[in-house]
Amino acid sequence: MSRPLLRKMTFLGLSENPESAKIVFLPAPYDATTSFYPGTRFGPRRIIEASPYLEFYDEETDCEVYQKAPFLTLPEEELPIAPQNMLEELKRRLKPYLERNMFPVVLGGEHTVSLAPIEILAEKHPGLCVVQIDAHADLRESYQGSPYSHACTMRRALEYGIELFPIGIRAISREEMEFVRDKGLEIFWAKDVVFKPHSIAQKISQRIGSRSVYVTIDLDGFDPSEVPGVGTPEPGGLKWYDALVILKELAGLNVVGFDVVELLPADNRSPFFAAKLIYKFLSYLFCRI
Amino acid sequence: MSRPLLRKMTFLGLSENPESAKIVFLPAPYDATTSFYPGTRFGPRRIIEASPYLEFYDEETDCEVYQKAPFLTLPEEELPIAPQNMLEELKRRLKPYLERNMFPVVLGGEHTVSLAPIEILAEKHPGLCVVQIDAHADLRESYQGSPYSHACTMRRALEYGIELFPIGIRAISREEMEFVRDKGLEIFWAKDVVFKPHSIAQKISQRIGSRSVYVTIDLDGFDPSEVPGVGTPEPGGLKWYDALVILKELAGLNVVGFDVVELLPADNRSPFFAAKLIYKFLSYLFCRI
Amino acid sequence: MSRPLLRKMTFLGLSENPESAKIVFLPAPYDATTSFYPGTRFGPRRIIEASPYLEFYDEETDCEVYQKAPFLTLPEEELPIAPQNMLEELKRRLKPYLERNMFPVVLGGEHTVSLAPIEILAEKHPGLCVVQIDAHADLRESYQGSPYSHACTMRRALEYGIELFPIGIRAISREEMEFVRDKGLEIFWAKDVVFKPHSIAQKISQRIGSRSVYVTIDLDGFDPSEVPGVGTPEPGGLKWYDALVILKELAGLNVVGFDVVELLPADNRSPFFAAKLIYKFLSYLFCRI
Amino acid sequence: MSRPLLRKMTFLGLSENPESAKIVFLPAPYDATTSFYPGTRFGPRRIIEASPYLEFYDEETDCEVYQKAPFLTLPEEELPIAPQNMLEELKRRLKPYLERNMFPVVLGGEHTVSLAPIEILAEKHPGLCVVQIDAHADLRESYQGSPYSHACTMRRALEYGIELFPIGIRAISREEMEFVRDKGLEIFWAKDVVFKPHSIAQKISQRIGSRSVYVTIDLDGFDPSEVPGVGTPEPGGLKWYDALVILKELAGLNVVGFDVVELLPADNRSPFFAAKLIYKFLSYLFCRI
Amino acid sequence: MSRPLLRKMTFLGLSENPESAKIVFLPAPYDATTSFYPGTRFGPRRIIEASPYLEFYDEETDCEVYQKAPFLTLPEEELPIAPQNMLEELKRRLKPYLERNMFPVVLGGEHTVSLAPIEILAEKHPGLCVVQIDAHADLRESYQGSPYSHACTMRRALEYGIELFPIGIRAISREEMEFVRDKGLEIFWAKDVVFKPHSIAQKISQRIGSRSVYVTIDLDGFDPSEVPGVGTPEPGGLKWYDALVILKELAGLNVVGFDVVELLPADNRSPFFAAKLIYKFLSYLFCRI
Amino acid sequence: MSRPLLRKMTFLGLSENPESAKIVFLPAPYDATTSFYPGTRFGPRRIIEASPYLEFYDEETDCEVYQKAPFLTLPEEELPIAPQNMLEELKRRLKPYLERNMFPVVLGGEHTVSLAPIEILAEKHPGLCVVQIDAHADLRESYQGSPYSHACTMRRALEYGIELFPIGIRAISREEMEFVRDKGLEIFWAKDVVFKPHSIAQKISQRIGSRSVYVTIDLDGFDPSEVPGVGTPEPGGLKWYDALVILKELAGLNVVGFDVVELLPADNRSPFFAAKLIYKFLSYLFCRI
Ligand SMILES: [Mn+2]
Ligand SMILES: [Mn+2]
Ligand SMILES: [Mn+2]
Ligand SMILES: [Mn+2]
Ligand SMILES: [Mn+2]
Ligand SMILES: [Mn+2]
Ligand SMILES: [Mn+2]
Ligand SMILES: [Mn+2]
Ligand SMILES: [Mn+2]
Ligand SMILES: [Mn+2]
Ligand SMILES: [Mn+2]
Ligand SMILES: [Mn+2]
Repeated sequence: MSRPLLRKMTFLGLSENPESAKIVFLPAPYDATTSFYPGTRFGPRRIIEASPYLEFYDEETDCEVYQKAPFLTLPEEELPIAPQNMLEELKRRLKPYLERNMFPVVLGGEHTVSLAPIEILAEKHPGLCVVQIDAHADLRESYQGSPYSHACTMRRALEYGIELFPIGIRAISREEMEFVRDKGLEIFWAKDVVFKPHSIAQKISQRIGSRSVYVTIDLDGFDPSEVPGVGTPEPGGLKWYDALVILKELAGLNVVGFDVVELLPADNRSPFFAAKLIYKFLSYLFCRI
Repeated sequence: MSRPLLRKMTFLGLSENPESAKIVFLPAPYDATTSFYPGTRFGPRRIIEASPYLEFYDEETDCEVYQKAPFLTLPEEELPIAPQNMLEELKRRLKPYLERNMFPVVLGGEHTVSLAPIEILAEKHPGLCVVQIDAHADLRESYQGSPYSHACTMRRALEYGIELFPIGIRAISREEMEFVRDKGLEIFWAKDVVFKPHSIAQKISQRIGSRSVYVTIDLDGFDPSEVPGVGTPEPGGLKWYDALVILKELAGLNVVGFDVVELLPADNRSPFFAAKLIYKFLSYLFCRI
Repeated sequence: MSRPLLRKMTFLGLSENPESAKIVFLPAPYDATTSFYPGTRFGPRRIIEASPYLEFYDEETDCEVYQKAPFLTLPEEELPIAPQNMLEELKRRLKPYLERNMFPVVLGGEHTVSLAPIEILAEKHPGLCVVQIDAHADLRESYQGSPYSHACTMRRALEYGIELFPIGIRAISREEMEFVRDKGLEIFWAKDVVFKPHSIAQKISQRIGSRSVYVTIDLDGFDPSEVPGVGTPEPGGLKWYDALVILKELAGLNVVGFDVVELLPADNRSPFFAAKLIYKFLSYLFCRI
Repeated sequence: MSRPLLRKMTFLGLSENPESAKIVFLPAPYDATTSFYPGTRFGPRRIIEASPYLEFYDEETDCEVYQKAPFLTLPEEELPIAPQNMLEELKRRLKPYLERNMFPVVLGGEHTVSLAPIEILAEKHPGLCVVQIDAHADLRESYQGSPYSHACTMRRALEYGIELFPIGIRAISREEMEFVRDKGLEIFWAKDVVFKPHSIAQKISQRIGSRSVYVTIDLDGFDPSEVPGVGTPEPGGLKWYDALVILKELAGLNVVGFDVVELLPADNRSPFFAAKLIYKFLSYLFCRI
Repeated sequence: MSRPLLRKMTFLGLSENPESAKIVFLPAPYDATTSFYPGTRFGPRRIIEASPYLEFYDEETDCEVYQKAPFLTLPEEELPIAPQNMLEELKRRLKPYLERNMFPVVLGGEHTVSLAPIEILAEKHPGLCVVQIDAHADLRESYQGSPYSHACTMRRALEYGIELFPIGIRAISREEMEFVRDKGLEIFWAKDVVFKPHSIAQKISQRIGSRSVYVTIDLDGFDPSEVPGVGTPEPGGLKWYDALVILKELAGLNVVGFDVVELLPADNRSPFFAAKLIYKFLSYLFCRI
Repeated sequence: MSRPLLRKMTFLGLSENPESAKIVFLPAPYDATTSFYPGTRFGPRRIIEASPYLEFYDEETDCEVYQKAPFLTLPEEELPIAPQNMLEELKRRLKPYLERNMFPVVLGGEHTVSLAPIEILAEKHPGLCVVQIDAHADLRESYQGSPYSHACTMRRALEYGIELFPIGIRAISREEMEFVRDKGLEIFWAKDVVFKPHSIAQKISQRIGSRSVYVTIDLDGFDPSEVPGVGTPEPGGLKWYDALVILKELAGLNVVGFDVVELLPADNRSPFFAAKLIYKFLSYLFCRI
C-alpha cells in the first residue's frame, strides 16, 4: 500500500460509505471576510487537504481508526452571513447525523460556529460539559456590537446551560474576569497547564465524571511556535504533548463530539498540525479496547 | 444576490446537475512529489477554490456562461504514479463524458496530463490541431530517462498525429530546435506574440480552418509578473490581454476541449488568474450568438 | 542632504506645521477584521511608512510638492465599527480642514470610507463628479445584508447626487450591469483603458469640464502584477503609466480631493506603489505653473 | 468596552497624557540599511502597532498596568547615521524624562541603541547592573572596523562601569571568551537557563541585591521557534516561560529601565511576542502591591 | 578577527587544504524535481551558505573544531537521476576520502542518499550500527513503485546487514510496524525521547557498545517549530537540546560518519539550525580530550 | 542531453577550463549587513544558482554562447568591509583576467562594486562610456556620510573621466538634478524609455559610436512587477523586452564588460530574471556573426 498523491476532499481523502459511517466531519467555513485572501473560512478545506498526508496507522493505539469508526465528510455548502442564520443552517445540517448517533467533528471557521453543535448536544445530553482549549476566554457579553462575535462564543454557550472548563487561557479582559468570578467559573490558565498537564487533566476529568462532554479546540490555544496560523499569536500556549495528555484523559470520558476552529491557514504546518490532532483524538476515542 | 463565502469544491462553487451539464472539469492532480508541500498536484484544487470569487457575469459577452452551458466538476480521485497508468486512468474518467459530447476542461497537474484528452480527442476528431501556450517547446524525445516527462509532452502528442501550434515559446534546446526544423514545425515565439498577438492569432486561425482544435495552456507561457506560481519563471511571457486576443480568435474555431496545467500554487493571485482565464475562454466559446 | 532612515508617522516623515498646511492626509484604518493579521485597516500606516523612502523631488514637474503645498497628517484614531457611525466620525474629523479649504487625501481602509469625503464635498461643491479607479463597479444595492459594504460604495455615492466616471472596471454583476443601463452610466472598461488611456482620459475630462471632481482610487483597479496587495487580484488592470496619463489629465480639472483605498499590505511593493502614486498626483495637482 | 480596530502610534494605541505619564517609550529605529526593506529600524513601530491587540488586563497580576503607571510614547524622529551621534541624540531625547524620574522603555533597532539609556542610567545610579538577554555576548572590542557595532555593545557598556549579567548566550568568539575569563565575568549560558531558569534567576537576583538594574533584551536571546524575526536565528534559546521566570524575579529588584532590541519584523508573531513581553514585564514591575 | 560577510561555498566559508583535511563534506543535492523551485536538492548549499554565520568557537567544548580536524568541502557535481546510478556516483566520490580515513559528513538531498555512505561503511566496518533520527521509519518495502524512495531508505540499509536504532519516529504504517515486530527492531518513539532523552541515549549507547556507528539525521525528526523546512511537518518532534543529549552520548562511541538530509529550504532558520547541528556534533566528536 | 539537477557554483553549473575561458564572472557579494538574512550580498550566488535552470541554447541567436566564449566563474572570496579596500580587492582580482583580455561580468552586491571594473576599464580604454540602467541617478556627492554609498556610485564613476548614459531613471534628488544640469548630462527617463526603447537605444548608440562602453545594470531599473527583489521598488521601470532592445543595440558597439547589481534575493523569479538577462546579453555580444 502506498500513501496517495492527492484524493478527493474527504478526511484522509478516503472513499466513504454514508451508510456505515460513524464519524461525521462538518466543514463550517465561516468568517466575515469577502475577499479571496487567507481567512478562517479556508480552515476546513486546508485541514481536509492536509489529512491524506497523515500516516493512517496510529502506533500509540496500534489502530487505523477510520476502519473502526468509518468517516463521512460533508461537503462545504454556502453559509448565511448573519450569525444566527448561519448557526441555524449548521444545526440543520448536523441534526440528521446526530439523530443517527454519529459522532460529530466540526471544522471551523470562526469560533462562533461551535455554538451549533453545542446547542444541539446540550439539548440531547442534559448536563453537557464543554471543555474549551483556547488562548481567550471568549466570555464577553458582546463585542464590537455583536453578541455572536467569536469573542463571545463561550458566554453564549453558557446560556445553553452547559458547564464550562476553559484550558490554556492567557488573554482575558477585566469584564470577563469579573464574570468568571461572579459565576464561580474555574479557568485552567496556560501558565499552569504547560507545567502540569497531567494533574489538570485529571482534575477536569474527575469533575466531569460521567457527564457528557463536548470539546471545542480554538487553535490559538496552542503555542504560536507550533501553530503559527492563527489570528492572535499569544505566546505561552499549549504544546503538542500537553494536548495529547489532555485529550487522552478526556477520551476516557463520555465525549459526544468536538471541533477544531480558528485556523487561519497562511502556512503549511498549521493545517497539518490540526489534521493530526483530530486524528489522534479520534484514535484515542475510538480505538480503546 | 450576493457572492458566496465559500462553497463546495466545484467550479464557481455551484450546485451541479450531472444530467444537464455540458462542460466537464476534470482535476488531474498529478506530480512526482510526495511531501505535503506546494506542488503542481495542488493546482486543480487551488483553481477550483479561487473560482467562486470570480464575478459570474462576464461583461464582454453579456453572459453568465454556466447558465448557457452548465458545469460538472469531477471529484479529485487518486491517480497512479506511473505516467502511462495515470494517463490510462484519466482517459477512463474522461471517456463517458466525451461520449456524451460534453466539453472537457482538464486542470493540471504536470503538463503530461494533457496527453490523456489529446489522445482521446485525436481519435475522435481526425485532423485534430493542438494549440499550445507554453514557455517551453516540450519537444524532447525523453528527459531524465522518461519519455513522459513534462518536457516531452508535445513530442508525445505529435505521435498521435496531431498538428501543433506552439505559442509563447522562449526556452528551447538545440535538440528540440533541430526536431522543429526537421518536421517543418512553426513556432510562434513569445517575443513576437507579445508585440503582434492579433496577426499571429489570425494566422493560426486561418491555418487551422475548419479542423477541430484542442488548446493546452501551460501557465508558464504567461509572464511571471502576472503568473508567478510556476516552476520556471521565464521572463518575456504572454500578458493577460495577449491571451484574450488569442483565445477570442480561437473561440471562432471548432474548439473541442482545453486544459490549464503546471500551476504551482504558492501565491494567491496565480490560481485566481487561472480561474478567470478559464471562465473567460468558456465565455468566448459558449456565449457566442 | 540625505534621505532619512525612518521618521515619524507623517507622509514623507516630515515635521509638519498645521498652520501652513494645505494638504491634509486622513488615515481611515477601517475594516471588519479583529485579529492581528494583515487587513486593509493596516493600509494607511503602510502607505505612510513607505512614503519617506520616496524621492521628495519629482523630476517630471521639477518640484518638491510638499514645499508648495505643505502637508498635515492626521493621527490614526479609533473608528466605530458600525459603518454609519464610522462615516460620521470621519466626516467630523475632515470638516474643520475642509472649512479651511485644505485639500483632503483619505487613506483607506475599505472602499466604504470614501463615502465620508464624497458626502461632504458633494454638499460643498454642487455638481460634484467622482472619478473611480476600480476593478469593480461597487454598484450593488446591498451586499451580504449591508448597504454599506465596499461592494456598494458607489451605489451609495450616487445617492448624494454625484456624477460617476468608473475606470478600469473588469468585474461586475448582472444586477449592477442592469443598474448601469437603467441609469445611463458609462463605464470605462479596463480592457479599453489599458489600450487607449489618453483618449479615455480626455473624454472624461471633457465631460467633467469645469465641475468639481473627487477621485477615488481602489488599488485593485491596478494590475495585480504591479499591486499584488489587494483582496481580489483581477488580472487585466491598469498599469502605472496608464494611471499617470489619467491623473495628469484630471490634474487640469478642478480636483477637490482624492483617496487611495483597499490596500491589503502583505508585501513591500504595494504600499510603495500607493505612496508614489499619491505623491505623483499631488505633484501634478500642486506643481502646475 | 471593546478592543480597538487600530489606533494611533502609541503603546496600546492609547490617548496619552504627558503630564501624568510614568513610563516613557522611546522608539530607536536605528540600523544601517537604507532600502525600503524589512530591517531592525522597523522594529519599534511593529512592536507599537502590535500592542493594541494585547489584552489590556493581565490576569496574573490582576491589573491593567497602564492605569497604575500611565504611558507616554515618544514619536519616531530621525536619527543620525553615525553611531556616536545617534547615541547623543537618543540621550538628548531621554534625559528630560529621566530627570522627571519616568521609567524608560527603549525599543530598538540595533543593540547599539542600548548604550544611550545605559550611559545615562549608569551616571544616575552608581553601581548600575545590566542584565542582558541575548544569544551573543556582544563583547567584541570592535567588529568590522567599528567599536559601535551591535557585536560590541556590551563591551562598550562595561566601559561605563556597570556590572554585567549575560543570560541566554550560545554564540561567542574565542576572543570574547578570553575577555570573559580575564574580567571574571559570569555567563549564564542558554543551555543552563532553559533547564533551571528559577535557580539562575535567583542567583542573579541575589548578586544584584539592592543595586539598580537595567535590563536589555536582545530578541535573539529567545528561541527562533518563538521569535523567528531576528538576524541570526540561533537554536536553543529561551522560551516564553523562561523569560517570565527571570523577569518576575528581576521585578523584585530596583529595575530602572529596560529595552527590547533587534526585532527584524518579517513575520507577524515576533512583534506580538515583543509587545506582550514588554507589557508582562511592566505588569510585574508596576502592579506589585 | 571578524566574521566574514560571505565566503566561498565551503563549510564555514573557509579556505581549505585537501592535504591536511580530516573531515570531508559531500553535498548530495538529489531530489526528483526539475523546476527552479525550493526542493531538497537545494539543501546542501543552503546549509553550506548558512555555515559562515556560525560562531566558529564552541563554548561547550572550548574549541574551534575546524582547527583540530580541518575541513574539505567537495563541490556540488551533477548526479544521475536514476537512484541506483546516483548511489554509485556518490560512492565513487566518497571512496577516495574514506580510504584516507577521513570522516564523512553527507548533506542531502533526499534520505535515499544516505545509502551510499552506509553501504561503503558497512563494508569497511563489520557490525556497523546506524542511528536514525527521523519522524518516519522509512522501512517500506517499496513506495510508489520504487524500492529507492526515501520512504524505503532504512529497509534498504538493513539489507547491508547493519543494526538500526530509529529515534524520534512518530509516523509509521501498519506494514512497517509488522516488519518491525517481525525483525524484533526497537523503535525509540518521539513521544518517549522528548521526555527522557538521557536514558534513551544511554540505552542506545550501551547496546552499540564498541561497534562502529553511522548517524543519519532526517531533519523531519525535529519538531517543525524548530525546523519548519521539511516536507511533512509532523508535530511532536525532537527539540534542539534533545538532539544535543543524544549526539553528545553518541560522540562517546566509535562514530564513523553522519549525514543531515531532507532539508527543504523555504525559510532562513532551518538551514542555520542544520549547520549549527553539524558543527555541534563535530565539536563533540573531535574536541574530546 | 538533459538539463542538470544542480551543479557546482559556476555560471550554468558547467565544468570550466580557465585556460580557454573568454568570459569571467566575478561575484562581488558586498553589502553592509552582518546578519544571516537576505541582503544584496546573497545576490551573486542566487544568480549563479538560478543559471543552470536556463535553457543553454538561445533561439534568437541560434547559439549556445558558452561554447563560443567559454566561461570562468571566480569563487566567492571574502571582501573587506571598508568600501575603498573592497574596491581595491575587486580590482586586484579582476586585473589578471583583464590583462588576458577576458570579458568581465561582475555580479553584485551593492552598486558600489561597479566602481572596480569601471576604474580599471576607464584606464584601459580611454574615452570609456558607461551605460547605466537604474531607477536612481546615483549621483549624490555623498550619502549618509559616505562618498561610497550606492547612492553615489555614478558620481564617483564620473571622476574617472567616463561619459555616462543613465537609462530608466525615475527617482532623483534636487541636488542630483542640479548636478545633471551643471554637467550637461542627459538622462534617459524611464517614462520615455518604456514607450520608445528603440529610438532611445539608437540615440545612445550613435552618441557612443566607436568608443568602448561598459554597461552597469542596477536591477531596480526594471519594473518591480518583473523584478520584485530590490531594495526600493520604484514603479514605472523597464520591462524585459525594453531591456532586450537596448542590450541588442549596445551589442553592436564595443562593449568591454558589464555588471548586474543590487539583487535582493527574497523571491525565486528575480534571480532567474537576472541570470537570463546576463545570458541574453552575452548571446547578443558573442554570437554575432
Ligand atoms: Mn482564541
Ligand atoms: Mn476562541
Ligand atoms: Mn512550460
Ligand atoms: Mn509545458
Ligand atoms: Mn475593487
Ligand atoms: Mn472598490
Ligand atoms: Mn544577539
Ligand atoms: Mn545583542
Ligand atoms: Mn522523515
Ligand atoms: Mn527519512
Ligand atoms: Mn537603483
Ligand atoms: Mn544604482
